[in-house]
Amino acid sequence: MVIVMKTTATNDDVKNIERLLKRLDLGAHISEGEERIIIGVIGDKRLLDGVPLELMPGVDKLVPIVEPYKLASRTFDPEPSTIEVGESQIGGKKLTIVAGPCAVEDEEQILKVARYLKSQGIDFIRGGAYKPRTSPYSFQGLEEEGLKLLAKARKETGLLVVSEVISTEFLDQAVEYLDVIQIGARNMQNFQLLREVGRLKKPVILKRGLASTIEEWLNAAEYIMKEGNYDVILCERGIRTFETYTRNTLDLSCVPLIKELSHLPIIVDPSHGTGKGNLVIPMSRAAIAAGADGLMIEVHPDPKSALSDGPQSLDFDGFSELMGEVAKIAQVLDREI
Amino acid sequence: MVIVMKTTATNDDVKNIERLLKRLDLGAHISEGEERIIIGVIGDKRLLDGVPLELMPGVDKLVPIVEPYKLASRTFDPEPSTIEVGESQIGGKKLTIVAGPCAVEDEEQILKVARYLKSQGIDFIRGGAYKPRTSPYSFQGLEEEGLKLLAKARKETGLLVVSEVISTEFLDQAVEYLDVIQIGARNMQNFQLLREVGRLKKPVILKRGLASTIEEWLNAAEYIMKEGNYDVILCERGIRTFETYTRNTLDLSCVPLIKELSHLPIIVDPSHGTGKGNLVIPMSRAAIAAGADGLMIEVHPDPKSALSDGPQSLDFDGFSELMGEVAKIAQVLDREI
Amino acid sequence: MVIVMKTTATNDDVKNIERLLKRLDLGAHISEGEERIIIGVIGDKRLLDGVPLELMPGVDKLVPIVEPYKLASRTFDPEPSTIEVGESQIGGKKLTIVAGPCAVEDEEQILKVARYLKSQGIDFIRGGAYKPRTSPYSFQGLEEEGLKLLAKARKETGLLVVSEVISTEFLDQAVEYLDVIQIGARNMQNFQLLREVGRLKKPVILKRGLASTIEEWLNAAEYIMKEGNYDVILCERGIRTFETYTRNTLDLSCVPLIKELSHLPIIVDPSHGTGKGNLVIPMSRAAIAAGADGLMIEVHPDPKSALSDGPQSLDFDGFSELMGEVAKIAQVLDREI
Amino acid sequence: MVIVMKTTATNDDVKNIERLLKRLDLGAHISEGEERIIIGVIGDKRLLDGVPLELMPGVDKLVPIVEPYKLASRTFDPEPSTIEVGESQIGGKKLTIVAGPCAVEDEEQILKVARYLKSQGIDFIRGGAYKPRTSPYSFQGLEEEGLKLLAKARKETGLLVVSEVISTEFLDQAVEYLDVIQIGARNMQNFQLLREVGRLKKPVILKRGLASTIEEWLNAAEYIMKEGNYDVILCERGIRTFETYTRNTLDLSCVPLIKELSHLPIIVDPSHGTGKGNLVIPMSRAAIAAGADGLMIEVHPDPKSALSDGPQSLDFDGFSELMGEVAKIAQVLDREI
Repeated sequence: MVIVMKTTATNDDVKNIERLLKRLDLGAHISEGEERIIIGVIGDKRLLDGVPLELMPGVDKLVPIVEPYKLASRTFDPEPSTIEVGESQIGGKKLTIVAGPCAVEDEEQILKVARYLKSQGIDFIRGGAYKPRTSPYSFQGLEEEGLKLLAKARKETGLLVVSEVISTEFLDQAVEYLDVIQIGARNMQNFQLLREVGRLKKPVILKRGLASTIEEWLNAAEYIMKEGNYDVILCERGIRTFETYTRNTLDLSCVPLIKELSHLPIIVDPSHGTGKGNLVIPMSRAAIAAGADGLMIEVHPDPKSALSDGPQSLDFDGFSELMGEVAKIAQVLDREI
Repeated sequence: MVIVMKTTATNDDVKNIERLLKRLDLGAHISEGEERIIIGVIGDKRLLDGVPLELMPGVDKLVPIVEPYKLASRTFDPEPSTIEVGESQIGGKKLTIVAGPCAVEDEEQILKVARYLKSQGIDFIRGGAYKPRTSPYSFQGLEEEGLKLLAKARKETGLLVVSEVISTEFLDQAVEYLDVIQIGARNMQNFQLLREVGRLKKPVILKRGLASTIEEWLNAAEYIMKEGNYDVILCERGIRTFETYTRNTLDLSCVPLIKELSHLPIIVDPSHGTGKGNLVIPMSRAAIAAGADGLMIEVHPDPKSALSDGPQSLDFDGFSELMGEVAKIAQVLDREI
Repeated sequence: MVIVMKTTATNDDVKNIERLLKRLDLGAHISEGEERIIIGVIGDKRLLDGVPLELMPGVDKLVPIVEPYKLASRTFDPEPSTIEVGESQIGGKKLTIVAGPCAVEDEEQILKVARYLKSQGIDFIRGGAYKPRTSPYSFQGLEEEGLKLLAKARKETGLLVVSEVISTEFLDQAVEYLDVIQIGARNMQNFQLLREVGRLKKPVILKRGLASTIEEWLNAAEYIMKEGNYDVILCERGIRTFETYTRNTLDLSCVPLIKELSHLPIIVDPSHGTGKGNLVIPMSRAAIAAGADGLMIEVHPDPKSALSDGPQSLDFDGFSELMGEVAKIAQVLDREI
Repeated sequence: MVIVMKTTATNDDVKNIERLLKRLDLGAHISEGEERIIIGVIGDKRLLDGVPLELMPGVDKLVPIVEPYKLASRTFDPEPSTIEVGESQIGGKKLTIVAGPCAVEDEEQILKVARYLKSQGIDFIRGGAYKPRTSPYSFQGLEEEGLKLLAKARKETGLLVVSEVISTEFLDQAVEYLDVIQIGARNMQNFQLLREVGRLKKPVILKRGLASTIEEWLNAAEYIMKEGNYDVILCERGIRTFETYTRNTLDLSCVPLIKELSHLPIIVDPSHGTGKGNLVIPMSRAAIAAGADGLMIEVHPDPKSALSDGPQSLDFDGFSELMGEVAKIAQVLDREI
């Protein structure tokens, strides 16, 4: 933390701040510039939490220096993490593909998808049971019934099951059925939910909020990790910008950036990230080329009849094409699929 | 809903869509333009929910025509709503001022503020008991203890009490202590929480999400109203933009816009909306001048020692100045304070 | 400028930077924190221009401390500037109202508006002669013919004339006819144009770019002032955000902020800022309440027949209503209209 | 164009609009919905330009249906365009790599880069002669001297030369020296400049404005093409969002989207798009994987001593690594480098 003083700050103002820092067991380094004085704070920044230094006389502004997250940072763990789920690994050489329909609709649909994914060598199936929808008049998901159908699909095919949990009160229920818990973009800062999944022993896919900075995202991961659950997988799914031709703007530069800042694995969801089925394949290639550890893809046996988000879903032919394209990119990056 | 066909669409494509609409009990109006055909859908649009028309052969795009919210819309109730809380009204001639510290810190602090507000003729006190904080290492609030202190302040002063609820599991607890429930910006699309406050008989202040459109915000209000609770007060608190000099960009044009689109009252929070104490007074004047029904203001007996958000809080002198300034604006708009 | 070193930086890395700074006649203050070293740079920051300190071994990031603009800053001139145009003043007690049609269409139209404005006690008329339009197929303005019509209106009514110049090659022509030159939002970073109006002796209204930060805006003013023309009036006209109900998001918090950072006057354009005629009056009230020195308003004798931007224009009755509303706000703020 | 009427619109309101459209030689298709009437406008939409239909009694809003650009659209030319420059092609099977320093600094620098690029099999060198800089105190480029040095580099190596022109007044000068003219992000809507390069017989690289929608970008291309110059190459270079870890957010989804909407070639600039040297290689891979026709890359013999934008430049080793990585991606997409 650096404290920048106003050009009009007095010696007393500076002394006051030194005294305050001393009381908090923090050191102060004073640099007298030509125009103004700056004070470097030395020691554990958390001691300053809740101390409104900005209001001290003579202070112009504060400049944070160290990132606020610890456990999620690359400094904490310089090696990339790999996360074990059943016999699969997320973050290793093999890319992780999580695929399935936006919403679980009925047994036939989910089993059809599950069998198809199994035949393609995929390890993870996803399907929404609790659907967060902008309008209360839209289809809200099958809820527990949907989880049961996912469990049925797992039983038959051995696929690992991923689904979103949207509220703490459904957590106990959901944990029973799921191998990986997904926290959706709208809940990235539902801190109570983060804390509670932090107390579980299940891997968590944490989607980026649609207006969340990378720093807020890593702080959200920190909420989970601080409770003891280190198995967090980040998932970029597009941010909100002024552009309206795509539903969101998929921010692929966050992939290499997260690799620098954090040891956590990161996957990309080009289906929600673009909102357009015909952009899913090129953006999947791009995501892997940028260094992502995997993809989350919407696939539906019959997108035209899907109850939610049909337009961005691939059908089986589209998905097979995607797998072929991604495999070629993976290979030249020395990864597998 | 208008369906815009591709320039390459065939007669069969159009016939197909007519057939589909007919099956759903919807009518179709075909307009043949010079370059392309457009199809107007006639009937209850909700019948189309989950039908991915975008994927039908020949379809270029869909253009929604009618707003998705009903109960929150001005069409549903052409008169502005006023909401009764105790003996106060929100949305009437008298402006509603909700004031208090960002976080309840201890008994002395909250009683000091409560007595001061009472002396200023204010009806509502606010104070955070559950604090949603970006970092898990920041002060998270006194939780139930904070609610008890608020109740104590009410008992002594008769002020009505407002506080944020951040999770359904704290709702039963919170309801006991509060006169008005606040849903914070980060939870504007926590749909389960919206549904549950919709089942209560308490007024709800619904803050706008920091990247939420006005339409999403009114849809969030609709979630609450659909469950039977019509006492929703909207609160603009700034949206996220590229500008970094202010913490958020306070979108005051939403005030007259909401007045057109909806019958719900709207108040403005310039403390969070700007993140800077010295902008609170001018932006309060501006909010009232734009037509807001009230303000939510952070006030603290000693902002320099506040445990959270000190820099944007006013002290008592600042708040008295604000009240004086706002009163003058209110008067020329034929409102009271 | 503060240089933040990496946690892995060596003593040699720090020594290297000290040597480099010394060579540039700059001082260095070293602060050893618990986790990392930071170096405060002492002296004229401009000596560092073009020196990529970020690339020096061991450097993590640079944190600028002092604002890059000088002449536009409040530090340079602690008193608010007032700008004389003819017998009018911009930035003084009297609010500046600049009004007129989006585009000059013909003699009848502009004279009708001019006479009306004169009758309302307005000092400045505006009208677009060169229109920057998104599509090349839209009406592009009457060009020099439009300027001549504005000059005619001035001759008859004595109104001062404001119009936008969109290219250096039209500047000589435009200067002849205009009292105040307007630089539009799209040209806020047309640096060659800024430099050339900086060499003139005419006041300049500098609109904020639609994705420009306040800092970039003040830097654009600095380009003009650096060439010797200090008569710059800033004009907020809305920024681009994700919200689509309004054409832009009018950022009124920039008004009190600019008053802090700069001595330059600032006016607000709620017509372009919202894109909706029915928001112009409430947002005009709000702009003045926020502390703006004036308004730029689109007014047209017959908005329904306007060749450009009709929907956001007021007719004469609407404008008279606006003047009445704004006068009441001005009065309680101890300003005149 | 679809006209959506208010729920309160009368038969007369509808008749009025029909009459108006008829007068303009346009047809009207009336669809009576359950809640409101919509009117489809039939005929050349440009006849409506400047007709403020929004202001007609009973009109709620207008919904545009057809894209406003023609020459730039894929409908106009269903085959992807390839653009010939000397003996090179942009938009063909071979990827176009444009590389060089942000700014031309001196003869030694630019010749060193030119020889190096030649040795790598690159066809195009870029280097800024006129530099648009946010602050007037930053290095503004060598201007004509810089163009001469670029021409010298071409003479020696045969490389084709690309440089940015920032004002119409430098255009005659620049044309003499350049093979391809670059229009920078800040000038994407400098319409006078667009028109003038539209009258030249030189290919133009048109960078996307940092807050420009894809539609505005294609309209800017249309300005150039309308004057007769069809040789436009689009270049994505990042858009402005709330994220601050990267300088801009590189919007790679625009690549496949542009391929759908337009026949023009598109390249990507990951140097400006991210502002960070260490993101350039992964984002170059991603851009090509997304389907881009080439890259624009900053390379400098000694980034640490660069006079502008050093941190995002690659040195020669970095560039060679980039070429190797991109070549592998190109190959699996059946393209060459």
